[in-house]
Parts: sequence; structure tokens; C-alpha cells
Amino acid sequence: MSEISLEFPDGSKRQFEAGASAKDVAQSIAISLAKKAVAGKLDGKLINLNAPINNDGKIEIVTKDSEDGLAVLRSTVALLAKVSLKEIFSDIRFGEDSGDAEGLYIDTDKDDGQVSADDLEAISTKIQSFVDKKTELKHESVSKADALKKLADSKFEAQLVQDSENTSFDFYTVDGVEVLNNGVAFENAGDVKFFRLLSVAGAYFEGKSSNDMLQRIYGTAFYKQAALDDDLKARQEARERDHRVIGNDLDLFFVDPKAGAGLPYWMPNGATIRRTIERYVIDKEVADGYKHVYTPVLANLDLYKTSGHWAHYRDDMFPPMDMGDGEMLELRPMNCPSHIQIYNHHIRSYRELPLRIAELGMMHRYEKSGALSGLQRVREMTLNDGHTFVTLDQVQDEFKKILTLIMDVYNDFNITDYTFRLSYRDPVNTAKYFDDDEMWNRSQSMLKGAMDDLGLDYYEAEGEAAFYGPKLDIQTKTALGNDETMSTIQLDFMLPQQFDLSYIGADGEKHRPVMIHRGIVGTMERFIAYLTEIYKGAFPTWLAPKQVTIIPVSDDKHGDYAESLRKKFAAADVRVDVDHRGEKMNYLIRDAQTHKIPYTLVVGDQEKANNAVSVRKYGEQDSNSMSADAFLSEVLGDIENYSRADK
Amino acid sequence: MSEISLEFPDGSKRQFEAGASAKDVAQSIAISLAKKAVAGKLDGKLINLNAPINNDGKIEIVTKDSEDGLAVLRSTVALLAKVSLKEIFSDIRFGEDSGDAEGLYIDTDKDDGQVSADDLEAISTKIQSFVDKKTELKHESVSKADALKKLADSKFEAQLVQDSENTSFDFYTVDGVEVLNNGVAFENAGDVKFFRLLSVAGAYFEGKSSNDMLQRIYGTAFYKQAALDDDLKARQEARERDHRVIGNDLDLFFVDPKAGAGLPYWMPNGATIRRTIERYVIDKEVADGYKHVYTPVLANLDLYKTSGHWAHYRDDMFPPMDMGDGEMLELRPMNCPSHIQIYNHHIRSYRELPLRIAELGMMHRYEKSGALSGLQRVREMTLNDGHTFVTLDQVQDEFKKILTLIMDVYNDFNITDYTFRLSYRDPVNTAKYFDDDEMWNRSQSMLKGAMDDLGLDYYEAEGEAAFYGPKLDIQTKTALGNDETMSTIQLDFMLPQQFDLSYIGADGEKHRPVMIHRGIVGTMERFIAYLTEIYKGAFPTWLAPKQVTIIPVSDDKHGDYAESLRKKFAAADVRVDVDHRGEKMNYLIRDAQTHKIPYTLVVGDQEKANNAVSVRKYGEQDSNSMSADAFLSEVLGDIENYSRADK
Repeated sequence: MSEISLEFPDGSKRQFEAGASAKDVAQSIAISLAKKAVAGKLDGKLINLNAPINNDGKIEIVTKDSEDGLAVLRSTVALLAKVSLKEIFSDIRFGEDSGDAEGLYIDTDKDDGQVSADDLEAISTKIQSFVDKKTELKHESVSKADALKKLADSKFEAQLVQDSENTSFDFYTVDGVEVLNNGVAFENAGDVKFFRLLSVAGAYFEGKSSNDMLQRIYGTAFYKQAALDDDLKARQEARERDHRVIGNDLDLFFVDPKAGAGLPYWMPNGATIRRTIERYVIDKEVADGYKHVYTPVLANLDLYKTSGHWAHYRDDMFPPMDMGDGEMLELRPMNCPSHIQIYNHHIRSYRELPLRIAELGMMHRYEKSGALSGLQRVREMTLNDGHTFVTLDQVQDEFKKILTLIMDVYNDFNITDYTFRLSYRDPVNTAKYFDDDEMWNRSQSMLKGAMDDLGLDYYEAEGEAAFYGPKLDIQTKTALGNDETMSTIQLDFMLPQQFDLSYIGADGEKHRPVMIHRGIVGTMERFIAYLTEIYKGAFPTWLAPKQVTIIPVSDDKHGDYAESLRKKFAAADVRVDVDHRGEKMNYLIRDAQTHKIPYTLVVGDQEKANNAVSVRKYGEQDSNSMSADAFLSEVLGDIENYSRADK
Repeated sequence: MSEISLEFPDGSKRQFEAGASAKDVAQSIAISLAKKAVAGKLDGKLINLNAPINNDGKIEIVTKDSEDGLAVLRSTVALLAKVSLKEIFSDIRFGEDSGDAEGLYIDTDKDDGQVSADDLEAISTKIQSFVDKKTELKHESVSKADALKKLADSKFEAQLVQDSENTSFDFYTVDGVEVLNNGVAFENAGDVKFFRLLSVAGAYFEGKSSNDMLQRIYGTAFYKQAALDDDLKARQEARERDHRVIGNDLDLFFVDPKAGAGLPYWMPNGATIRRTIERYVIDKEVADGYKHVYTPVLANLDLYKTSGHWAHYRDDMFPPMDMGDGEMLELRPMNCPSHIQIYNHHIRSYRELPLRIAELGMMHRYEKSGALSGLQRVREMTLNDGHTFVTLDQVQDEFKKILTLIMDVYNDFNITDYTFRLSYRDPVNTAKYFDDDEMWNRSQSMLKGAMDDLGLDYYEAEGEAAFYGPKLDIQTKTALGNDETMSTIQLDFMLPQQFDLSYIGADGEKHRPVMIHRGIVGTMERFIAYLTEIYKGAFPTWLAPKQVTIIPVSDDKHGDYAESLRKKFAAADVRVDVDHRGEKMNYLIRDAQTHKIPYTLVVGDQEKANNAVSVRKYGEQDSNSMSADAFLSEVLGDIENYSRADK
């Protein structure tokens, strides 16, 4: 019998008989390892635990406690789900399916109605019966031609096999039912432990909105009950904070792929939040010396050829439009070239510097339709953008000023959990950066000096600067614990050169300014997605679409008084309405809580007689009685205080 | 000799000998007519007064007091200008030229420098010398091939001849110099009376920004001195009010065809005006019950196929973008389909109607690059747009409410000169309108009823409604006396059908709403162009980019006091700065007037001692002394009063 040589992750090699399986290999190392083993990995590719290995290669034993181990378990559940679906629905067709470290899903289509959340229990019961009966999973690998024959009645799977670069395809037969499987599965359903089918949602075949919409069944699985429980809890938390779910519940925005993938429509509630933030940011910037402008979302493609975007960033740009008169127009991918147009419109003097140009600039970025998500990943976005033009000498002061503004804004939004990351060029490989040693050395030390002056902690990342200059990133944590770059301050030595920017110095000569790109709250889309998640939709009063709702105990008897209060508060710019629906009071109060309105006022005989209101704050159980005037000052004070914690 | 039959404008016909000229024809009618005659018009085409007529046709005698008469005079001046230019500049080349009812122009190009305003006097002197010497203009008509031979050294003219559909081309020889002429000219320079060359400005060859930029010489000419004087005065007035000139002088905006034709860049000053108006309009609308939204500037082309825009409006739309995944995206030409998306996102109840959706909606319209002008004709614009969805019963009340809002806004901007035009369908030809007699009859009588209720005068235009519903246009006069449709209220029965809009009525059944399109101040671009012209750039305080400038008598001695005032005023949201340049006071005051700043404050020893300011209002010669607090309340009152006349 011939021998094969297998290399282990630590680099050591051993000989095995040809045809040995991953399980044999594991057993040869330790019984305990064989017990934990659920699959092998040969040359980086998952293989069945008992599949014969006939060639030399790099071997790894996949155990339950690894991500790959979870993938095998989840692939098995996906496979059993397909078998169950086939047994339950005679007209079922499958699209893609997947089991990996993230979870599992199966895409389905039916002739007569579609799979819905109501079906998940029946499917789960079926899967559990295979687990309980320890049903065998019989595996067969076939050629593409044979796979296509088996899938003659399954057009989506046939299409996927047709388009695949693989040469062999895995089918499994369970309980007499044969299905295609795309991962590596157990050989016995009894090895499946704890699983849960979670939800059903539409998903376009191959992620393209021009294709059929299939129904995707989502699920997950674990080896331990506690791990499943933790995951379900985290999912629940994520769902409660998911800005797409809250956005729908509170009617903030929607995206309709039929009207345009990645193009959000802001409903009145979401638009109110956005408008409030936009006005806040503009006023803050204008007070800080920024000149706000409006520049077009389109420009001649030449502008992006000069800036270098077309050469380096083309994949993220929209297709140009041929205007038929020799002009190619392009939706801008960034606002910097537009602000350079503003700078270059006049001859500039050193007396004008630092010159701070800012805009709520709409931009368009091409993202694959599959990557789009709510307000987080979109194709049209409005950036709180700004560019400061300075002399090299002014870099440190301007950097400090920008950073101070950013921290001031964070304080207003009560964003407290953030860290600084200062990126320098790689000191041993300076050739790949913009070529001006003095600029790099002086500006890097100025940024560092500014951070030290402000007494801030920061991480220094050598070699992580952009080609065109050093930068500071400010990282925040999202509500779900993910890192997000909220703000950035980037020096740019290159664009001033590309566009031949200059200013007339005190010496009467032309000099080249440095450009600083800066964002404070990023795009409106992403920032509001972020806020929705951290606030769980309970926006602080200054941002809440509706700040106060007034419920008359009896609309007939107290409706007029409620209206008089509404007028008084509205005249003071409070967003207020009266709930005239006349439903039961408890229902109306509960409804106000569901809509997360900061203040619910109830007015009855006593309140009317005393020109008072009974105030219930969002999330609190108790009410307070106070005069209408006292309430108005309270709510105005609350609004003026933004989201600050120190209120 | 053969005879020809000529028909006169009154329909009568007479016989003439073949070869008779327009002058002969005029003389045969009346000596006085022959005296006033400057050219003929045969079958609608201008001909030389003495050109022989050899065929039957319709004849007209062109006299001095007609628009055609002016065109002949101005063509002759343009021709003499070309001859003069050739005599002055050996390297001159011509592009297009024109003489018509509007004026005259000649496009020029040179190898060595370009023609400038400084050259106009020399050219005028030369033209005058031909006039004084009564120089003869010798005319020759040649074939296209011969014309191209004559223009071998004149590439732009050769190109124009090459592209022309004409078969013969007119050349004139004057003073031994031969030039191409595109109009009909006199035969003797002595017939030219009063002319003026006005200005020189760049103009792209054939109006395309991808072509060479030529220098266009503008001029005009009249038969009477008084007419020339009036025209020069009107031009002066137009120039003083021209929003493009003021926009440049006050640094409000610019358009750079190299960066994109018809795409304005709003400089900080113009952006401040625009932002102030945008906030004003939104606040006004929100207070009036509108729900403001943000919707994407792009949509799937299908949306505009459903709406009918693609079928009927395609020539005014931008080219679609192929996103590569089956989606074609289109820059929206109008916002209505976007607001329909908002309406259709929920099932609507009759209780929600009237539902008022509003937006500052950016749109894109394809306009030929030659038609673009400043902020008046652009390719990217932001419309103060709104759509109200109502039941048919609600049309009258909602129409009144919208009209009341429009007049309220007009009052705030002190727009007083406007008229109403109510457009109905053609009662004898109803077949070409949306087919629902009840809707038309009831809604037309409701609009009329609303106008009468409000006691307004209006013009009723039968047959001028849109296909889809009746409308009201509100016409204003621009500063230069042109009519402009500022606002419009249009009923639409069609889009609700195209998009299958419905609401659930009190009866629990689905009903179709009526849609009302309405604009209050139109696009930001056009409205601010209009305001710039009516205000001659002297914006009222609430709109002025800078409201107050403070000039310290001595920057050393009074600069600090000026700064303390600046802080105090800025904290009250006044746009104020201190002029620290330290130049002579009179110069600084004059400079503030040039920039049309509403309030100029001078502060010296006395003001500092008394916490006072010396106030000079824009356009006034005198200053008033008052306390700083009194001034602050004055300026805040002024701002709060908008542009209203009753302040």
C-alpha cells in the first residue's frame, strides 16, 4: 500500500497510508482530539471527517471549538433543513445556502405561496426528528454534468452549479431524499446539537435586484446550549437596536430596491432628525469660522482626472454621462475637488488663511447592490465635509482647533467612548509617500504636539498614513460594540499640487498651501444609523421627531385646553401635537411610549382649572404635575442642552 | 421680357417684369414707402433692396421702423466691423456673426493676443470712416465650393459654411477687403446711422464648451439717436441689475464651464442667502402642516417610465446610468414620483388627508449648453417643491390654503406686482384631456370658487390647462419687466392613476386621491437670481450675507471695543464682523457701501466711552448715534421683519 505525507500546522510532517481519513489522523495524535474532531481541512479546504485522503498535503483537524467546527455543524443543519423542506413542500426549489461562522441560511422558492415564518416550527420539528433518530447522511461527489442532471428541476441551483468553477459537487441523501450541499456535513444527524431557525426575509437571487426574489430562511446552531442562548440574546439586542428595524417602526426612512438600490427615502420623522442635525452642525461650523457653500453634485469628468480619483478610485464611482456636446459629467465621489474650485476661484492672500470651506455635500459611491444596508451602506450620501487651506506653519493650531470642535460636538451628542489613532508615514520606506521630507517631518511633529498640548491619549501607527499626508482617525464604538471611524482629520500635500493651488505670501510670492480634509459627524446617513442604534430609537428631546404629545382625558371637555397648550408650545418651536383620537387614555399613553415620544402630557379637569399639565417622561412610570409654563421652560432647557449627559 | 407675379401681405397680387427689385416694387406702390425701404423679404427670406427678383413669390417691403429693418442695419454694422477688424489686425479670424432685432455680434480669434474692450474705439472709428465716406458695399453670391475656397484661411467660418444647409453664400467687398456676411446688408455704408460697439466677452465656438473659446464683440445700431440712447440706458439698467454681474461683484456664485456647464458654485455669500431662504421656507411650510422629507436625486428609470416622464419628457432628461446589475439609474427631472413613493409607502386613510409632502428637492434637467445662463438657466437646481394629496371634496379648501401661504410668503419678500392666470380645459375639445368630466367640472368650479372667496382678480384661460388637470399660475414681473411664473398650483388626476394611488375612505373602500403640485418660490437658483435683480444686490438685512460691519476709528485704540460688540451681536445671531484692516475710515466706509452691507458702524473714543455706536445705513449719507443695545434691537427687529414693506 502506498503512503502519503501530511504536514501539520506546526510544520511537522508524518506519513500515513493512502486513504487515511482526518479522523484516522486525529486518532493517531490523541483520542481526545478525535473526540472533538468534526471535519478535516486539507490544503485549506474543509473535508469530511471520514473522507479518504489520497495525496500529500497540509492537514488540519477541525474541532468543535473552532469557527470551522461551527461551519460544519451549521452546514449540516442547512442540509437537514433542505431535506425537511422537501418532505414538507413538494413544490420547493432552492437557491443558495450557507453555513459558516456567521450562521446559516437557505434560499427557497415555491410555486404555490412562499415559505414564511409560520413554517419555521414545522421545519424545525422535522430537523429535530432526524437528529433524534440519528439519521444517516449519505454523501456522494459527482461531476458538473451529473450535478446538472440531478438538478434538472431546480433552476436556481442548476444556474449556480453552471456558473461555479468547481469540478465536483456534493450531494447527500437523508431519509431517501437527495439534496445538493455546498459545505461539509456530518455523517449522522445525531451529531447536531442545538439549533434554531430564526426568520424569513426576501433576498434577490445572486443579490441582483433584476433577478427573482427568493425567501431566505435564517438560522444558527451551536454545540452548547449556553452558546445558543448567548447568541439568541445578542441577536435580540442587535434586533432591538437595528436601525433598519427601528427606522421602520418609528417611520424614519425606507429603501425600496425597485425604486433604486441603496437610495434611502427619509420619511417626515427621519427628515426632522436629519434637518435638526444639519442645522446644528452648520451653525456650529459657521460660529467656528467655516464658510459654508453649496457646490454641484456633478462635475466634468476632467475634474476627477486632475484630482486622481478617476485613476485610483474609479471602481467606486458611478458611470459617467455623455452630455452629447463633448462633455462627460460625473456624479462626484468626494467633495474635495469642488472645494478646491471654491478656493481657486480667487487669488488668495496669506491674510485669508486658514480658509475653512464647509458643506453638507451630497456624494455618490458605487457599492455592489448586495453590500447595501439601510442607512449604513448607501449609494447616495450627504457628508458633513470641510476643507481647510493653511500654511504649513498653521497646521498645528488649525489641527487643534478642528479637534476641539470635534470633541465639543461629541459632548453635545454625549459620545464619550472614543479613541485616537495618529497615522504617520513609514519611516523606513519613505519612497512610497508624497515626496517632501520637510512637510512630513514638520507636520507629523505638529500633529503629535497638538495631541500632547491637549493632553490626549493616542495610538501612533507608523506606516498607516495615506500616500498624501498624515492623519488622525477618531474611533467610536457602535451600540453593538463594533469599531467605527466617526471623524477624521487628514493632511493632504498632493491635491494642492495636482490643482496648482497657491496663495500670495507676505513676501509677495506664490506659495503652496496645505489642505486639511476633516469630517466631524461623517455622513448624515451613517451618523443617524449610529445614533438610532445607540439611542435604541429613543432620541433625546432636541432630536425627537415629536417632542411632546398632549392627551386630553376627554377630547370633548379638554380638547380645547390641549389645543391652547399646543399653540403656546409650538410658538416656542416645540414639536408638539394633540392626540384627538379619543381612544382610552391608557392606550394613548402606551402608544406615545411605543413611539418613544420624550414627553407625554395628560390634561383633565384639574389641569385645565390650574393651567397645568401632568407630565410623564419617556421610560418613566410616574407622572409629575406642574404648571404649563414650568413645563415649557423644562422642555426648552432640555432641547437647549442637546444630548449632553451633564444636564 | 417675361413677367413674375408677386403676392403682397394683404393677399393681393401684381405682375412685375422679371428682374424687378424690392425697391422697384416699393416705388410702384408709393415714393414714401421706397424712401423708408431698406430691404425686401421674398417668401419670408430677407433680400437686398436692389436684388433682382426672377420668380413668383410672396413679397414684403422691409422698412426702417420694423424689426427686420433693424436687422439689416445691424448686419451692415457687423459687416463693416469685420472689414475694420481685417484692416486693423492682419491675423484676425472670424467665427459666427449676427445682426438681428436683439443687437449684433462678431466672434473673433487672433494668433497674437485677442481683441479686447480696449480695441472697440479703434474699430468704431474705422466703421465711422466708411459711413462718413459713404463707401460702397459690393455684393457677390457664390456656391459652397467657392465660399470654401475664399475661406481657406478662416477655419471657423469654413466650418460654419461646411455645416450649413445653404447652397449660396454672400460675400461683400468694402474698401478692397472681402468678407463673408450672414445677413442682408445695405449697398452703401452711408446708410448706417447710429451704432455703438458695447463689450467683448468669451464665447465658445458653436456654443460648445469642448470647442475653442472665441472673443465675441457685442454692439447695437439704430436709425435714430434717441432710440440708441434709450437702448444704452436700458442696457445700463440691465447691467446694474444683472444677477450674473452682481453675483460676481458681491461674490455670490460662479459657473465654470470647464468644471461643468450650468452647474453653479455658491460662494459663502450666496450660500448664506440661500440657506436663510431655505430655512425660512421650510419653517413656514412645516408651520403650515407640511411634512418635509428628503428623497434621493436618483431613481430607477422604471419610476419615470411609470410616471410618463420618460415617454414625454426624455429630451429634457439626463442620460441614464447603467449600474451593471440590471439597474438603470436616472437623475430625476422632477420630484413628483419621489413624493408618490413617500405616499405609497403606507396604506393611507382618509383621516390622513390632506397629506402635504414637501422638500427642497434637487433635480437635473438637460438644457443645451448654449441656453445656460447664470442662476437663471441651469442643469442642476433645487426646487421648493410640494405635493398635497387630497380627496376631490378637499380641493377647494386646500387650494385656498396653498394660495394664502403663497401670498403670505410674497408679502414677507415684498413681492407685490403679480397677477393670476387660471387655466381650464378646452370645453369644446375635452377629448384631449384626462377623461373624467366630473373631476374637471367640480375641480374647475372649486378653483374659481376659491379665487372668488379670496376676492382676487384673475384671468381665465380656457384650453390652457395641462392634459392632467386645471392649474393656477402666478405671474410676477422681473426687475427688467419680463414676465415670470413664480408660483404654480396644479391639479393632477393622472399620476394618481399611473401609480395606482389610493386611500381608505370612511366607507372602508379604496378611493383615488387627487394630487396637487405646488411651488411657492420656485427653484433656489431662479428665485435668488430674481431677488438679486429686484434688490440690485442690496439684500434686505435678513438676507444680507453680512448684516453689520464695525469699523474702529483706530484699530489700536478701538479694536477691542469693536470686538466686544461683535461678540455681543454674534451671540444674538447677527452676521457681523470687524474691519481690522486699519485703512483710512472713508475708504472702509465706501468699501462697506460697495459691498452693500445694511449697517456700517463706526466706533471711536466717544462711542467707546458711552457704550454706543455711530450707525450708517446702506444707501444713506448720514449717521446716527445710539447705544449698542438700541442698535441691537433695531437690527433684530429689522431681521425679524423680513423684506416686508410695512416695517
